[in-house]
Order: sequence, then C-alpha cells, then structure tokens
Amino acid sequence: MTNSDDAGFMARALNLATQGQYTTDPNPHVGCVLVKKGVIIAEGWTQRAGQAHAEIHALNKTHDARGATAYVTLEPCSHYGRTGPCCDALIDAGIGRVVVAMSDPNPLVSGQGLQKLRAAGISVEQGLLQQEAMQLNRGFFKRMQQGLPWITSKLAMSMDGRTALASGESRWITSAQSRQDVQRWRAASSAIITGIGTVLHDDPQLNARVDFDLVEPVTVVLDTHLRMPLTAKMLQNRSETWLFTCSDNLLKQRQLQDAGCKIWQVTAVNQRPNLHEVFKLLAAQQINTAWVEAGATLNGALLESNLVDEWLIYMATCILGDQGRGLFHLPGIQTMTQKKQLNLLNIRQIGPDLRLTFTSQTPT
Amino acid sequence: MTNSDDAGFMARALNLATQGQYTTDPNPHVGCVLVKKGVIIAEGWTQRAGQAHAEIHALNKTHDARGATAYVTLEPCSHYGRTGPCCDALIDAGIGRVVVAMSDPNPLVSGQGLQKLRAAGISVEQGLLQQEAMQLNRGFFKRMQQGLPWITSKLAMSMDGRTALASGESRWITSAQSRQDVQRWRAASSAIITGIGTVLHDDPQLNARVDFDLVEPVTVVLDTHLRMPLTAKMLQNRSETWLFTCSDNLLKQRQLQDAGCKIWQVTAVNQRPNLHEVFKLLAAQQINTAWVEAGATLNGALLESNLVDEWLIYMATCILGDQGRGLFHLPGIQTMTQKKQLNLLNIRQIGPDLRLTFTSQTPT
Repeated sequence: MTNSDDAGFMARALNLATQGQYTTDPNPHVGCVLVKKGVIIAEGWTQRAGQAHAEIHALNKTHDARGATAYVTLEPCSHYGRTGPCCDALIDAGIGRVVVAMSDPNPLVSGQGLQKLRAAGISVEQGLLQQEAMQLNRGFFKRMQQGLPWITSKLAMSMDGRTALASGESRWITSAQSRQDVQRWRAASSAIITGIGTVLHDDPQLNARVDFDLVEPVTVVLDTHLRMPLTAKMLQNRSETWLFTCSDNLLKQRQLQDAGCKIWQVTAVNQRPNLHEVFKLLAAQQINTAWVEAGATLNGALLESNLVDEWLIYMATCILGDQGRGLFHLPGIQTMTQKKQLNLLNIRQIGPDLRLTFTSQTPT
Repeated sequence: MTNSDDAGFMARALNLATQGQYTTDPNPHVGCVLVKKGVIIAEGWTQRAGQAHAEIHALNKTHDARGATAYVTLEPCSHYGRTGPCCDALIDAGIGRVVVAMSDPNPLVSGQGLQKLRAAGISVEQGLLQQEAMQLNRGFFKRMQQGLPWITSKLAMSMDGRTALASGESRWITSAQSRQDVQRWRAASSAIITGIGTVLHDDPQLNARVDFDLVEPVTVVLDTHLRMPLTAKMLQNRSETWLFTCSDNLLKQRQLQDAGCKIWQVTAVNQRPNLHEVFKLLAAQQINTAWVEAGATLNGALLESNLVDEWLIYMATCILGDQGRGLFHLPGIQTMTQKKQLNLLNIRQIGPDLRLTFTSQTPT
C-alpha cells in the first residue's frame, strides 16, 4: 500500500523527470528516487536517448541499495534496447520494493517489467500519481498507443482575433515574453510544423532559440506542390527539414534532397496533403510531439481534421482591425449550427499578453 | 481621525448605496449609516431621484440620533433641489460627527455641505474609501466633472474574434449566462446605444429584460441619414428612443417624432455623427452611463475617437472562421505601428465564456 510519504517521493521523481524534457526525445522523460528508511539515498533521471535510464543513474550514485524502495515514474524496462534492462539492475542491486507511477504504454511489453520484478521477490505497486506521469510524457504515450504524435497548434493574435495585417505584417503582435515562451515550447517539441505559405511569406527559421541543451526539433513543411525555395533560411538549421508533398516532380524532389531535405510523398485530400497520413508518418519517424505554427489555411484544415490535441492562443491586448488576417480559414461554415467548439483548459498571463489553452475534445 | 471601525461602517454604507444602482438614475447612488457607541442604529440609501436622499431615509428610522456618527458615501447636499438639504436634517437631528467618503463632484458646490456641517459644530472627516465611492458613481462623477457620460462598449465574439457570420447571423455566439449578464449591465445604464446598421439588420429591442425594479434606460441610435424604420421594435419600448442624425430631412424627422422619437441633429465627421458632440448632448440630458452595443463600424469609430472608458468583451469558446465579421472596422491601420493598444483590467468566467474588461487609458 502506498502512503503519503510514497506520494512525496514519487512527486520528487516526477520533478527529476522534467529535467530531461528537452533532451530525452524520442525516449520518454523518466525520474527515479531510491529511499532507505524514509531518506533519499540516490536520484536519477533519463538524460538522452541511448544513454543510461533514470534507474541506472540513481543506482550508480549509491554503493548499497539493498532493501531500498525505488520510485520510478514509468515501469522499468525488461528488454535489451540500446541499454541493458533496468529490471535486472534493480534486482541485482537488491532493491526491496518498487513503486511505479504507470506501466509501459507500449501494449506489447506493458507489465512485463513489473512481472519480472515480482518474480524476483520484489514488492511492486503501480498507479501512484499516474495522471501526472501520463501528462509528463503525453507525446510519447500517444505515439505508443495511437501511432500519432501529440499535436499542439500555436497561434498569436490581437485582441480582435487577427494574426497579421492584411499585408501579412505581424511583427510583433505579442510581447517579447510571449515569444520567449514559444521558444521553450519549440525546444520541448520533436517537430515544428508549418505550411509552405508561411515559408514563402516569412522565411522563418522555426528553430528553438534557447540557451540550454536540447535535442533539436526537426522542421516540417507541408508543401503540396514543392514550392520550397532552395534558399529558405530553415535549410541552414542544424536540424533536418522534412517536406510532405503531393507532388511527384522528381527533379524538384532531387534538388531539395540535395539541399538537405527529406521528402515524403503523401496522398491528397482537397488538393492538400492528407493530414492524418502526415502525422502517422511523423509518429513512425519517432516524433512524439508536433508543434504547429502556421497560417489560417493549415489551421483551418487542422481544425476540420480534429487531429489537434491542444490549441495555444497567445492573445495580445492590441487591436488590428477587421481587415487583418484571421486564425482559421473555414469556408464550410455557413450557419451558426456549423460553428466549431473548443474547450477552454486554462489561461495564463505571459507578460502583458494572455495565453489561452483550448482542447479539442470534450473533457472527460 | 478615522479608524478601522470607521472603515467597516463606511463599507456598509457603500454596500447600501449599491441597492440603488438600478433606480437612482440620473442621481448618484448614496448610502448612509448612523452609529451610536459602535452600534448601527439606522441605515438608508437613495432609492429614486426626486425622493428622499440616503441621509433622510436613515434619520427617519431612528427617534434619537443625537450624538451619533453619520457615515455617508458622498458629501451631503446643502442646497434645495427636489428635496430639502440633507445638511440641515443632519444638523437638526443633533448628529455629532459626519464621515464622508468623498466631496461633491460638482466643482460649483463641492465642499459647501461639509463647510455648513462644520459651521454647525459637527466634526467632519472626508476621504475614507474614496476610491470605492468614486467607482460606485463613476458615470455621475464623469458627467459632473467632464460633461460626458461614462462610456462602456460591449462586444461578443467567438474565440477567433468574430461577432457574426458573413451573413450577419450571430444567434448565439455566447452563452445564456453571458446574455443574462448583459441584461444586468443594460439595467444599470442610463442609455443603450447602437448604430442604425444594427437596427436595420437585427431590429433589436435593446431594453433591459430583468425581473427587478429599474429606471428604464433610453435607447439611442446613431442614424446619419434617418433610415430608422417607423416599425422598429425598439419604438414599442416603455422607454424613449433618441436619434442622433446628420440629416435635415424635416419630413422624416417629423414622422419619427410622431412615432415617439426625440431627434438631435449634429455635425458630421467623416460623413457620420460627431461622436464627441453626441456624448456631450447625452450628458446634457443627464445620461450618466452609456452602454454601447454596436457593430464594427461604430465600434471602429469609437475606438478611433478615444471616447470609450471601458470595453467589455464576451469571448465564447467557439470558432466562426475568417469569413466572419470583425469587431472593429479600422481602415486606417496599414502598418503595425498604427495598431491600437488597450489595457486589460480583468477577466471573469461567465458560464462557459470569458468576459474581458479593457480600458482605453494607461492605468495611473
């Protein structure tokens, strides 16, 4: 049976896990705390894919873990991947009890680690702070369970719902604080996605400009007709640029591949890339979290597709007027019964702006 | 010297004053508490213009106010209006001390009541909870001091900044709770203002549909060319309809007067009624608080005019798409440096919607 001390130690393990949020991709963020007689004797967290997992980091920090309780935010692995199985390490170290927040989300291996620990005579409990643990790796879990990344679309608008002037000018609607907040979200994402219209108009870098270590997100462009310029700034990024196109122009494909792009040719829906197919392919490329920064066309299509998990709206207190550009191009809405409904999850003040988070699904 | 007991009694007087918020128009809301030896012996508040003021109501509820302290949210009147001067009544009752939240906002009589009380040997203090007292009657005070009403413009929009579909259909963007909230704001206003475009499109009643006693707000329409239909629903309201026009079509004026309208002919600015002149005339008609519910044209002009004190934006969580109608028609904005800036004062959740309050001025 878990108790309130257990909850405190698991909360600490979750907190440690977040230290890997910019660097473990495509692996999950995991934290581990070892406790003997109510005292933490060692801590660890997963830092980079291919390196030691949280449990190993913690075990390496103590000479004698015999009889200790291990708090782990995710079921320890039982298989040989790029690293040895953590279950074996916990058993070999003489751990007496293991408390996990949740079992492995991969249905093929879920529970196998816990079973192996139990078979070795270790007391095992699961489910403590499970909601928090799921939230921490929602992208990884969604990819494991649904074969899709966690999809967030970010928009920045004036108080009167405009993302730019009629001319397209949009620098800047929101504050420096909001733009810095966006950089951190980008850094925590596996991929940053936009449409070719934004590339042609703004020529953005779409990289994460932060001053800490990170796994660089790949840049993804939905480019129906392969209009991507070979001179686009984003092609100079350290990270890769991936194009999803409906064009079979092999010459253009070859030119862009020579410029460093990876190209996927997908089916068309309404003369645009099939979004479900695009995100399925991204998940297959181990993209856990997809961060969209796009214009009204792509955001309208995303809203129609119902694929987006979360909408982040940065709302400035300025007014741009009714000639400015809107957030969502939705030509299909002709009557009020066709309006789209979102759920407001939370509001935060970011500098002088507001950040509103909406979810697509009805809250459960 | 005032103390914490004084603050408590003044807070009670302010609370009493709010009981008149729907009925004292065009007079201010005032509350009064009489206290002897730390105990409230009588209370009163101004209920209707032309009837007894707060102080008289309180004095009428006690047989012996000798030596009591009177807490009044506004300097007692010293002149004969429709009622006798409250100063004389307080003096006659033998009140020993008077604490007022603020002096009379009318510069012509400000301080005269307090002087009269002091001359009668009564101890007088002023300024306790003055900010709260000013807020309570901000419309009355603005009219007294600037010759303009307190102007609030209300807009209801989807999350993506749309007040209606392209067709004009807008029923309903916001929730029943938000619409009920609007009814209370209307009820507390002296005038409800709209543009002729809204009348021609929606034929609204623009009255306050509430289940409590109130002074009915007048309905005001800015009607440049006197296009007001004689069959408009608002002409059936119990309250008056006032038209502000630039048209000198005497025949049309006469027809509308016969239908019950009052008409003011004002100068034109950009082929529309001079807004400053309109609001000056409204204040001259004892309009303390003007509540605007209008479309993008009038709201754009109001924003440009800088006349609005407060913008109330009801934001629903639905999306209408970029073909929908905007909040502000601002053809003059061509570059980002020309964007308009508001200040966010507060946010409230109203049912499933948000109500955002913005002010035009930089907060002091």
